[in-house]
Amino acid sequence: MTRLEQQLNFILEIDKLKQVMRRTRLLHGGKQLGRFENTAEHCWHITLMAVVFAEHSNEPVDLVRVIRMLLVHDVVEIDAGDTPAFGEQGSKEELEAAGAERIFGLLPEDQRDEFIGLWREFEGRETAESRYANAVDRFLPTFQNIQNQGGSWRDFAVTRAKADVRLSPIGEGSQALWGLVKGVLDEGEAKGYFTDPNASRGGL
Amino acid sequence: MTRLEQQLNFILEIDKLKQVMRRTRLLHGGKQLGRFENTAEHCWHITLMAVVFAEHSNEPVDLVRVIRMLLVHDVVEIDAGDTPAFGEQGSKEELEAAGAERIFGLLPEDQRDEFIGLWREFEGRETAESRYANAVDRFLPTFQNIQNQGGSWRDFAVTRAKADVRLSPIGEGSQALWGLVKGVLDEGEAKGYFTDPNASRGGL
Repeated sequence: MTRLEQQLNFILEIDKLKQVMRRTRLLHGGKQLGRFENTAEHCWHITLMAVVFAEHSNEPVDLVRVIRMLLVHDVVEIDAGDTPAFGEQGSKEELEAAGAERIFGLLPEDQRDEFIGLWREFEGRETAESRYANAVDRFLPTFQNIQNQGGSWRDFAVTRAKADVRLSPIGEGSQALWGLVKGVLDEGEAKGYFTDPNASRGGL
Repeated sequence: MTRLEQQLNFILEIDKLKQVMRRTRLLHGGKQLGRFENTAEHCWHITLMAVVFAEHSNEPVDLVRVIRMLLVHDVVEIDAGDTPAFGEQGSKEELEAAGAERIFGLLPEDQRDEFIGLWREFEGRETAESRYANAVDRFLPTFQNIQNQGGSWRDFAVTRAKADVRLSPIGEGSQALWGLVKGVLDEGEAKGYFTDPNASRGGL
């Protein structure tokens, strides 16, 4: 098989990411709830966000590396599915690693190695680029939830404390973006979208 | 308004691109037709394609510029809608230009000017980067149509000659990609997915 044929197989395969559904809803639903978002359209949004917000990264970053990372980091979800931010994290790791081998393995070896490396770098959050990329990736759901009657916060009975833990890595990548998110979390709390950890779970 | 607030307004506004529908269908529908594709998920796909296929550009390109171009070039569709490849091209130009002013105008001036420039550059096809970007943008629908019983070729009663005219700019950006597309067009012709220009239109 030629390099071009290998690359084509990868490009056709990843169309499936458009059918992987997330637990967040689109903005602009108005009075109605927005539909659930798929991972492919989410990836376009965060990649363009990374370009627009680049000046707000805490550390200087190689923006091209951030972009490449954001474009490929979710491709493993084709095999592993989306892991909801507030659901059970479970042991998706094995599924995702197998997915990375299978899907990136469609590519010529040099590109396979590069993309697997980018995916691992994103997950590791140990480089300036991956910290900024993770900040961008976690930024938008807060806005999606506030515009959709609490969205996944209510669907998963999330406490404010849990939201803070999940989202605080945004500050490791960008204090400016974390400032915006904190403001919206406060608004969500005022609107009663978070679960009170002291409330009775009912029936007792 | 701060720069950050302006950028946030832009980022929230462009969520609407996920609701702009194209006339092409997803791959992997199997026996069923795939659902129609939206422009946001399409933009993720072609941006990652540009990375994967970069070595096949006819001319050396600044890949970062190609990526930025592909990420933003369709944002005007939020106001102007998608222009189907094989439908009436009409005069979308004014709508798109007004859309560019309104949507990119949400950004700080320097970013507004940059993005409007990238959108115009894409449309003009006068630089190596825009020729390669256009090749990538026009590549996938051929594969989507062949996997969906003729797709937009049949929906718009397209002749093979018209498809060749519409898609030949792929060759201006990448002869390698054009070679793949030509092969699929031949397959589509063999399967009878194109309209015969000499056939009676019926009723006569």
